Amino acid sequence: MQKIHAIIFDLYGTLYDVHSVAHACEEAYPGHGTAITHLWRQTQMDYTWLRSLMERYADFETVTGDALRFTCAKLGLPLLPGTARQLCDHYLRLDPHPDTPATLRRLRDAGVPLLIASNGSRHTINQVVSNSGMKWAFDQIVSVDDVEVFKPHRKIYLLAEQRAGHPREHILYVSASGWDASAASLFGFPVCWVNRDGAPFDELGATPAVVVPDLGAMADWMLARR
Amino acid sequence: MQKIHAIIFDLYGTLYDVHSVAHACEEAYPGHGTAITHLWRQTQMDYTWLRSLMERYADFETVTGDALRFTCAKLGLPLLPGTARQLCDHYLRLDPHPDTPATLRRLRDAGVPLLIASNGSRHTINQVVSNSGMKWAFDQIVSVDDVEVFKPHRKIYLLAEQRAGHPREHILYVSASGWDASAASLFGFPVCWVNRDGAPFDELGATPAVVVPDLGAMADWMLARR
Repeated sequence: MQKIHAIIFDLYGTLYDVHSVAHACEEAYPGHGTAITHLWRQTQMDYTWLRSLMERYADFETVTGDALRFTCAKLGLPLLPGTARQLCDHYLRLDPHPDTPATLRRLRDAGVPLLIASNGSRHTINQVVSNSGMKWAFDQIVSVDDVEVFKPHRKIYLLAEQRAGHPREHILYVSASGWDASAASLFGFPVCWVNRDGAPFDELGATPAVVVPDLGAMADWMLARR
Repeated sequence: MQKIHAIIFDLYGTLYDVHSVAHACEEAYPGHGTAITHLWRQTQMDYTWLRSLMERYADFETVTGDALRFTCAKLGLPLLPGTARQLCDHYLRLDPHPDTPATLRRLRDAGVPLLIASNGSRHTINQVVSNSGMKWAFDQIVSVDDVEVFKPHRKIYLLAEQRAGHPREHILYVSASGWDASAASLFGFPVCWVNRDGAPFDELGATPAVVVPDLGAMADWMLARR
């Protein structure tokens, strides 16, 4: 593998814990929190892919609200506008994974430029990052808003490469989603797959360069190679 | 609505019951049949969308096998090559929904040209149709093989319109999948959504022209309008 000059991180599920929304869902709908969180997240991802294929981009906040309405209807739960707003707002105040702050600090201290490339809208990403007090960590934030198509379309990986300012083979792409890691790898980034749950890798014809159990192990691997 | 000159049917879930695979899964993995069937089907659809967005088309049989491998790995179940082949073969021998044969017979007797437009490969669709003894029903079979991108990309709806030989506003598109019905409607077909389970319609910014509980009701509606 070539020398790494920058790292691009996925946001949802990689740096931030999307299931931190579960607690709020359980409070709003006692006994249904887990069911809502999982169907909501699956529907949210499905809608990003479907809208991209239909060439009907809508930003992540819109898709997140649409997915919640479908989820509650599917589960037979009433959804008041106030509850919808309150639950969707949790996607703006996600918790970072416990190993995120310390890992990013180590990488920054080592002088590695850090970027985010996310399916979130610019507004959403900025909110998530600043609400968690992590603005110091990132050199650049790349949103699908600028290409109006969601991952795994290659346009977002290409934009992130251009913003990083290095050829793709010198940029490490870090994601906890197997499908995102697959697409980034097929695009040409060396990829680090963060496999927190011991899951199998997606069967999409790609292989990550390295697999780690958490972000700390990613930094160990990265810094040992410099 | 304009006069209808032809009907295009989706295949999986609309004319044929994809959960007829569940029985074989339960036999191969007692106690896990339902879990396998649902995760397999969701992963199969996800992979068609992901591959389409990645511009890495592989035919439906390949994607179905890939999705089964991922499903079994995710559920911690061993998968022998013989079992994989045997389970995947069930996707070539799906049961039609109970109302499919009689409905298609009524429509044919009324002189309505009938087409299939499916995510299946040409080989897969031909096998499903001929194994169920339904070859008499269809004037044309349109496979995504000819455009190398899966639904809901507009290319497959456009190809089906061209094969039907009528302007889209004169072609009824029938699907039991909310996302497929949404995309077909945004393309410009009048759409009949077959809602067998009383599910909510997907929140993708489209509305079907008509909603029916089964194929028989679709034929009633269609024939009353001629």
